[in-house]
Amino acid sequence: MKKTLFSLLASLLCIGAAAQAVPASTNVPTKEYPCVDAQGRATFQIEAPTATDVQVDICNVKYPMTKNADGVWQVTTDPLVVGFHYYALLVDGVRVNDPNSETFYGCSQQTSGIEIPETPEEAAYYTYNKDIAHGQVRECQYWSEIEQQVRTCYVYTPAEYETSNASYPVLYLQHGMGEDQRGWHEQGHMANIMDNSIAAGKSVPMIVVMDYGNCGYGFGAKAGESMMEFGASFYPVLLQDIIPYIEKTFRVKTDRWNRAMAGLSWGGHQTFDVALTHLDLFAWMGTFSGAIFNMPGTDFKTLYNGAFADADAFNKQVGYLFMGMGSEENFGANTFVKTLNDMGINATYYESPGTAHEWLTWRRCLNEFIPHIFRK
Amino acid sequence: MKKTLFSLLASLLCIGAAAQAVPASTNVPTKEYPCVDAQGRATFQIEAPTATDVQVDICNVKYPMTKNADGVWQVTTDPLVVGFHYYALLVDGVRVNDPNSETFYGCSQQTSGIEIPETPEEAAYYTYNKDIAHGQVRECQYWSEIEQQVRTCYVYTPAEYETSNASYPVLYLQHGMGEDQRGWHEQGHMANIMDNSIAAGKSVPMIVVMDYGNCGYGFGAKAGESMMEFGASFYPVLLQDIIPYIEKTFRVKTDRWNRAMAGLSWGGHQTFDVALTHLDLFAWMGTFSGAIFNMPGTDFKTLYNGAFADADAFNKQVGYLFMGMGSEENFGANTFVKTLNDMGINATYYESPGTAHEWLTWRRCLNEFIPHIFRK
Repeated sequence: MKKTLFSLLASLLCIGAAAQAVPASTNVPTKEYPCVDAQGRATFQIEAPTATDVQVDICNVKYPMTKNADGVWQVTTDPLVVGFHYYALLVDGVRVNDPNSETFYGCSQQTSGIEIPETPEEAAYYTYNKDIAHGQVRECQYWSEIEQQVRTCYVYTPAEYETSNASYPVLYLQHGMGEDQRGWHEQGHMANIMDNSIAAGKSVPMIVVMDYGNCGYGFGAKAGESMMEFGASFYPVLLQDIIPYIEKTFRVKTDRWNRAMAGLSWGGHQTFDVALTHLDLFAWMGTFSGAIFNMPGTDFKTLYNGAFADADAFNKQVGYLFMGMGSEENFGANTFVKTLNDMGINATYYESPGTAHEWLTWRRCLNEFIPHIFRK
Repeated sequence: MKKTLFSLLASLLCIGAAAQAVPASTNVPTKEYPCVDAQGRATFQIEAPTATDVQVDICNVKYPMTKNADGVWQVTTDPLVVGFHYYALLVDGVRVNDPNSETFYGCSQQTSGIEIPETPEEAAYYTYNKDIAHGQVRECQYWSEIEQQVRTCYVYTPAEYETSNASYPVLYLQHGMGEDQRGWHEQGHMANIMDNSIAAGKSVPMIVVMDYGNCGYGFGAKAGESMMEFGASFYPVLLQDIIPYIEKTFRVKTDRWNRAMAGLSWGGHQTFDVALTHLDLFAWMGTFSGAIFNMPGTDFKTLYNGAFADADAFNKQVGYLFMGMGSEENFGANTFVKTLNDMGINATYYESPGTAHEWLTWRRCLNEFIPHIFRK
């Protein structure tokens, strides 16, 4: 009964702490904290009677928590930007998870995360809609000949896949550095984005494959790899293991006009590395806050084995090249697209208003990207 | 490069700490600690220079860690029992996750876990085998009319489901208290168990549905619920939402001889609560360390609406009743089965040697249970 009473008390405290605060959607079942009020202020709480200093670290801001007589620490933040944020508790200086939160693989470890909600209208495109048909996200194990080990990928199949006999185009969709194949599903709500876009007739039904890009090591290269080589060990796995596995296991179309690649942050870097050097395989591509940094004076005509050298040839081969990012980050997608456009290359820039290098940017990018692919 | 050097150093330390120690299979990618040696001793490590006391708490034993000059804490345990164990770090007395470990939903929160390996031969039945066909585990969202909210279930489909047009029997498989629909897949390796058993011809191809049993609250009942009512809110969801959803969405056989239910610990309690009172719906059932406690003097003929009152009728209706547990726990499955057998009721007891109330017991139970179901 102790837990029951504690929870009831917590519930009352949460209401008292901030008017109309509700438990974050990212909490584990039945946990009242963290809760978020209508102004986007989050109230965190942890029972830690033996600790001497506890802080919340969220969006690069640290909030010292205050301990009450029962050893329960609490703090309410300033209003936070909407969307999904990784966060941590600092217990006597040690960075740990909040036991009340689901965990999400990011920053190369399982990390707490909190969703600061948008309005229902704003969030509709990545929210479950009970009145439409829903696809499934399948976790598939496959043998990698390249790595000589079993690997796991996530595969989204559209709702109609279960009942049709049709074959579908495939989008290969990559996470960012320090994340893995789970990111787009769990942090990104990609299944809801796909379901809603397909149900509305905005996007064609497609299969989406999410795999681990071998860039979970941390914010730097592996031993022996230069920064630009980081995650390159994924490319042969994708080309020689994953694509054949998918085309053997699912009903998919296998020509280049039915194969796309996109990725966020380092996954955007990987997308250009792979797709632009394999235009025989990919006809559609997108980078979402892509980590694609070119030095001033870079000769674009020689990048990616000269993919951009002949604008007319490129425009005939590539159905859609999309580069998006948040307005509050500086990942150069705007200047990259401008350079391409100035060269006569068709490329589209999208800017997510008010967001930085975070999952809300990437949800929006995915939602903007998918209506334009597989349209040939 | 700091991370690289740290990891190299960690790797060397891990080798030094315990001869032939290898990183636990439950670690997140690239993490060397915790590592496990051939004697089943685990070495844990965490960088926490500002903490004054750090311990590992595993299998109800606390191991104080020792800090080196760089602020890195380390300890090697005694030999641990094989199988999967939840564990925690105690940082200045506060129970937290190990950042090196994957997290697993158990004890009503995301918790660190470590696999102490058996021999490859012992572990073969729950290990990925590259030479056989593999099923998939699908995460499906569905609308619960009972709860008026979206819920998530995991659905295992056998390898041949992708290419056949056949319909399959369905096993509804429940987790334990403080766990959720992810447990059987992530802690239990159920997909490998199913794949291996089906590929060997020991079990018939079947669909397995895993859902959240509404018993993630903690080790006690919700406010207003008696202990025996705990998790009972799941039953109408199962009967009125989940089963219809599965039968609408997948190619499944829908008569009682093609529907089974099993569960571990509290999920075993729920299995008897549901299946024994709905013999019109279920013909096969199993409890794995089922939390089924009867007071001395209980009249078995009146339990579960009198399901056991007529042994002959029961034996005609129920194809298989299985009750398993570990030899190192005391969950009464042996005496329960003896009572049933003495009443003339067909029931099978299985005892997992050397294991307690843990996932290795339940993996073994599942592997023992599935060959016997859907045999009518």
